[in-house]
Amino acid sequence: MQDEFPEKCMIAVGIVGASGYSGGELLRLLARSDRVQVRRVTAHSQAGVPVGAVHTDLARVFPLTFEEFDAGTFEGLDCAFIALPSGEAMQIVPALQGKVGRIIDLGGDFRLPHAALYERYYGRPHTTPALLGTAVYGLPELHRERIRLSSLIANPGCYPTSAILGLLPALAAGIIKPAGIVINALSGVSGAGRSKAVELSFSEVNENIRAYKIGTHQHIPEIQTVLAAACGQEVSCSFIPHLVPLTRGIYSTIHADPNGVHSPESVRNAYEEYYHNEPFVRVMSGIPEIKNVAYTNFCNIATAIEPHSGKLVILSVIDNLVKGAAGQAVQNFNILFGLPEHHMLR
Amino acid sequence: MQDEFPEKCMIAVGIVGASGYSGGELLRLLARSDRVQVRRVTAHSQAGVPVGAVHTDLARVFPLTFEEFDAGTFEGLDCAFIALPSGEAMQIVPALQGKVGRIIDLGGDFRLPHAALYERYYGRPHTTPALLGTAVYGLPELHRERIRLSSLIANPGCYPTSAILGLLPALAAGIIKPAGIVINALSGVSGAGRSKAVELSFSEVNENIRAYKIGTHQHIPEIQTVLAAACGQEVSCSFIPHLVPLTRGIYSTIHADPNGVHSPESVRNAYEEYYHNEPFVRVMSGIPEIKNVAYTNFCNIATAIEPHSGKLVILSVIDNLVKGAAGQAVQNFNILFGLPEHHMLR
Amino acid sequence: MQDEFPEKCMIAVGIVGASGYSGGELLRLLARSDRVQVRRVTAHSQAGVPVGAVHTDLARVFPLTFEEFDAGTFEGLDCAFIALPSGEAMQIVPALQGKVGRIIDLGGDFRLPHAALYERYYGRPHTTPALLGTAVYGLPELHRERIRLSSLIANPGCYPTSAILGLLPALAAGIIKPAGIVINALSGVSGAGRSKAVELSFSEVNENIRAYKIGTHQHIPEIQTVLAAACGQEVSCSFIPHLVPLTRGIYSTIHADPNGVHSPESVRNAYEEYYHNEPFVRVMSGIPEIKNVAYTNFCNIATAIEPHSGKLVILSVIDNLVKGAAGQAVQNFNILFGLPEHHMLR
Amino acid sequence: MQDEFPEKCMIAVGIVGASGYSGGELLRLLARSDRVQVRRVTAHSQAGVPVGAVHTDLARVFPLTFEEFDAGTFEGLDCAFIALPSGEAMQIVPALQGKVGRIIDLGGDFRLPHAALYERYYGRPHTTPALLGTAVYGLPELHRERIRLSSLIANPGCYPTSAILGLLPALAAGIIKPAGIVINALSGVSGAGRSKAVELSFSEVNENIRAYKIGTHQHIPEIQTVLAAACGQEVSCSFIPHLVPLTRGIYSTIHADPNGVHSPESVRNAYEEYYHNEPFVRVMSGIPEIKNVAYTNFCNIATAIEPHSGKLVILSVIDNLVKGAAGQAVQNFNILFGLPEHHMLR
Repeated sequence: MQDEFPEKCMIAVGIVGASGYSGGELLRLLARSDRVQVRRVTAHSQAGVPVGAVHTDLARVFPLTFEEFDAGTFEGLDCAFIALPSGEAMQIVPALQGKVGRIIDLGGDFRLPHAALYERYYGRPHTTPALLGTAVYGLPELHRERIRLSSLIANPGCYPTSAILGLLPALAAGIIKPAGIVINALSGVSGAGRSKAVELSFSEVNENIRAYKIGTHQHIPEIQTVLAAACGQEVSCSFIPHLVPLTRGIYSTIHADPNGVHSPESVRNAYEEYYHNEPFVRVMSGIPEIKNVAYTNFCNIATAIEPHSGKLVILSVIDNLVKGAAGQAVQNFNILFGLPEHHMLR
Repeated sequence: MQDEFPEKCMIAVGIVGASGYSGGELLRLLARSDRVQVRRVTAHSQAGVPVGAVHTDLARVFPLTFEEFDAGTFEGLDCAFIALPSGEAMQIVPALQGKVGRIIDLGGDFRLPHAALYERYYGRPHTTPALLGTAVYGLPELHRERIRLSSLIANPGCYPTSAILGLLPALAAGIIKPAGIVINALSGVSGAGRSKAVELSFSEVNENIRAYKIGTHQHIPEIQTVLAAACGQEVSCSFIPHLVPLTRGIYSTIHADPNGVHSPESVRNAYEEYYHNEPFVRVMSGIPEIKNVAYTNFCNIATAIEPHSGKLVILSVIDNLVKGAAGQAVQNFNILFGLPEHHMLR
Repeated sequence: MQDEFPEKCMIAVGIVGASGYSGGELLRLLARSDRVQVRRVTAHSQAGVPVGAVHTDLARVFPLTFEEFDAGTFEGLDCAFIALPSGEAMQIVPALQGKVGRIIDLGGDFRLPHAALYERYYGRPHTTPALLGTAVYGLPELHRERIRLSSLIANPGCYPTSAILGLLPALAAGIIKPAGIVINALSGVSGAGRSKAVELSFSEVNENIRAYKIGTHQHIPEIQTVLAAACGQEVSCSFIPHLVPLTRGIYSTIHADPNGVHSPESVRNAYEEYYHNEPFVRVMSGIPEIKNVAYTNFCNIATAIEPHSGKLVILSVIDNLVKGAAGQAVQNFNILFGLPEHHMLR
Repeated sequence: MQDEFPEKCMIAVGIVGASGYSGGELLRLLARSDRVQVRRVTAHSQAGVPVGAVHTDLARVFPLTFEEFDAGTFEGLDCAFIALPSGEAMQIVPALQGKVGRIIDLGGDFRLPHAALYERYYGRPHTTPALLGTAVYGLPELHRERIRLSSLIANPGCYPTSAILGLLPALAAGIIKPAGIVINALSGVSGAGRSKAVELSFSEVNENIRAYKIGTHQHIPEIQTVLAAACGQEVSCSFIPHLVPLTRGIYSTIHADPNGVHSPESVRNAYEEYYHNEPFVRVMSGIPEIKNVAYTNFCNIATAIEPHSGKLVILSVIDNLVKGAAGQAVQNFNILFGLPEHHMLR
């Protein structure tokens, strides 16, 4: 449908690092629009290869070929999406600034507030620490107005999107204590990217489950600092990610200690009120499932008071490639360019 | 190999409710022994059908046919295994007692200490409450000597086996507080039994995850009462079971608040010491995975101190059909009949 | 996006039997359009239930509620889609004709040319045999112009779509003999519909494969008669369907005996020429995979001459819920209503 | 149970290349025996690593450590199993001969009758062509007596085991023509070995199917030459392997043209008679499934006359790691050493 709209009115975009799973999902969503034209797609390992040879479902849909990244070729684009592994975006953003209108980075390079925290969890120094203060954390439910005015968006991580959306209303309303929060998160394997590790092979992942990176995952400081800034107090959590045998989806089961006594209804009311106008958060009375949100940009959330422990239990699910990556990037894009927020997301 | 041993020396057994997944797994294990002879297999819904028509991998291995249950036909057997849905075993145990030497019930009817607790969580009155006091909870790691002398064994539930083995050393050593324990457990679908619910169909379970029975699961009182009895204090926990898309396995991720300060090494030492002589518990330094234990009777356990929350994290994994059901029943059988504890379990 | 277009210009549609997997997929596709308004959704077993309670990913997207079918409520709609189990559509089409503009039936009731064949393979008499001659078999690649003028479209079966598209060019060009064709087809489980059979449960399907309905499948006469009519000669085939553990996709591996000698290149040229202008058939040089077509309306096809047997091998893959059901129905809808053929299909 | 039998009566074995999936399965089976002692396990990439760190389910069961291969350390062993990638066994067999009693090679190096065929399909010259004439193809159903007397067994490939067992009775009885046979085979991913290719990653294999190596697979000459030798006539077939999303299992669906007219019953009788005394082949009246044979050494076979094409359809299923690799190796071992053929295989 890209040819039906006058080309001069089209929003011209490029994608840096478009050969991975997030890049592919982004292309799939952008293909639905009659307002957006994808002009450049780069991929170091696939330079010279047609898009449809990598994202084979898109063969014929995008007659584009992956190129080596060259900031000059992005000159004049309205927006650049960056879907590179963490550590690479910070190398190229300075070159893109001034050439493209807006930048949406799907990686982790601009999500944390200062360089020391970045270095501690990502295991490398930050090369452009001055940019950390200028990027806006692109969670529309928290920062919609700041996003609208920003030229550098740090698109949230997949686990943090699920955990932060799950915890925000309870922390904002003072329903729970901000310390000792327990987040058990289950992720589909696409979250690990297109990769050739033995431990990601089908024979190893199928009929298997494993936790990983206990106490060291780079999404821990992202969750803690975003929630702390939003609620005005320190937040600490145990975050335990697990790999489970499905391709897409994140399931977060969160426990927190209530401040005082709350009824299930009052908690749910607080959640419904908090997300009342949000197009992509659904507060549920039943128990969420991945299939509620698979291939959508929705986050589904439910809450319960567990009777034996008295703890608040929060269940929050997303599709890691949509609301946890490409879909949220498109939602941010829609906000930046004044499009309906659900454009390309149905 | 069942014909190589003098028949008069064989231990004669029967299985009540042998057509389900636990019954099938039990038959698979018993087929490995040259000391055990399976004489009777019953299954109401499959009466008249050969074993190999239901458990098709066992065709030719067991030339037996499922029968309707009749206590009289069990007369003289050394041991009866019961693999019926909960609520049915309590109807037939009185008729079996006196006719068979020993009874091992794989269901939930004799695991709780009193009838009121049973009724609250199982949703029906207990019909033989007097037997609750005589059954021994068949967790060898806790009750090996009592099992040896018992004539009615309540084989532990799948989730409780994983959770209790994970928590016992820490509670016994006073390392953790007994309140506010959080157990997130992930189960393979075979735990739901051979069943025809839409929500258990492949199209619904594949690429999906869902929590269920929050705060109401019948394994909660089993976990709490066994741990309380073992440790001499009330234990309370939030237990959240989840269905994930694999056939076998239980993955329990447990958080508890430490009593005072403990190093990771001291915690691990306590675990290794506690299970020092146990043939089927492996304390690990790495992170457990389902494939460590799939198709085995092992429980693998690891511990960590999570640095952001200070909580003790315990990971405990089993195969729900082996250590969580049929394998543990065989381990109990071996204890009862003086066989090496790993007989049939390799 | 349904609210952005003047309502009087919207195409009004209803779906009979909208609670199954095909109905859900149809709703997902229709949600992408700013030209189509879904006015009625019926489902006997779910009457009174909101669409979003069944197709949970669509909660909030469609604020509709399933109703009992009543032909009167369809009065004035531009198009009715029927996604009922085979045998039910023929009961209601007479009542819909005259009330709605066009009817697209996704089931098998109008795909065969005469009632005797229907009765033989579907196991029941056809109740409206007169309609069999008026329906157009809705394979756009074969009948685009007839579809455009038709008021009753028999949307092709999933297996037949894959097999017929794979065989058409070779039969039309006389490359292969029309007898002794062997079609091995592998289907995802969603093809069996939302159903509660034990044999469709996750524990039975996962890590399993099975063939079924050898020589009796109702898609055999559909494949044979459509190909025979298209090529002007009798066509006979062995069609062996298999259930494999994935949710979506059909993989057909076809063997046929060549007429004379053909090079791989000449065969491929014949295929490329045949599908030259088709928007949804991609002739490939590599080997097709389900992921080439998953969640798309494409059929991917490749051919090879197998050197040991000299046979022509044709590989043809589709997504059974899209090109094999709802997507092809939308493609037919677009043809009927003069929309771009890929509308809603990207 | 390895310690219960007098050590001097134990059969001492070693495994070369024991870190892969076949090696692990072999260890799992050998662990069940009280007659066999595993003395040496080698693995180039894992030298110095304990067995239980690679095959984690076997931790504690085998207190052995992988070593670099050194023929001298195998001196005096009763049997060596070789589970190396094809191309490596032929390098070491000469050094093992004379040092160990018997050799069972699970790879492809000794399965073909002459070096030219090996080079054509394996893409490398054979380095010890003289040994090709001395090895016995270890399919017990065909060569039991020759196996008993052999010192070098070429354990059959996974696909050939399934295809040959499926075709032997029909070819031997002259029921089918030996040309134009079509074998469609579906394999679980473990058949590709423990490997880190992107195309074997979970995200690529899950919800996907793909054919591969059409007309070039190295199992084609194995199938053709073994059947030709057994039946005294040239055999030609199209063999199309497919990768499907399960870990274990091979499903072969075979079509062949009958010689004359045969009833389904007469065909089945021929099969039952052919395999009458075979402990590990089950001729079925129903349709085989992978779960009939998973984790067993059985091959299940069914036949049908497809009515539209008149072709004979043969369905043959095995577990690729058991009857297709380690289990058949153990069956051969049992024959070599005079043990009951099902020893370790229940």
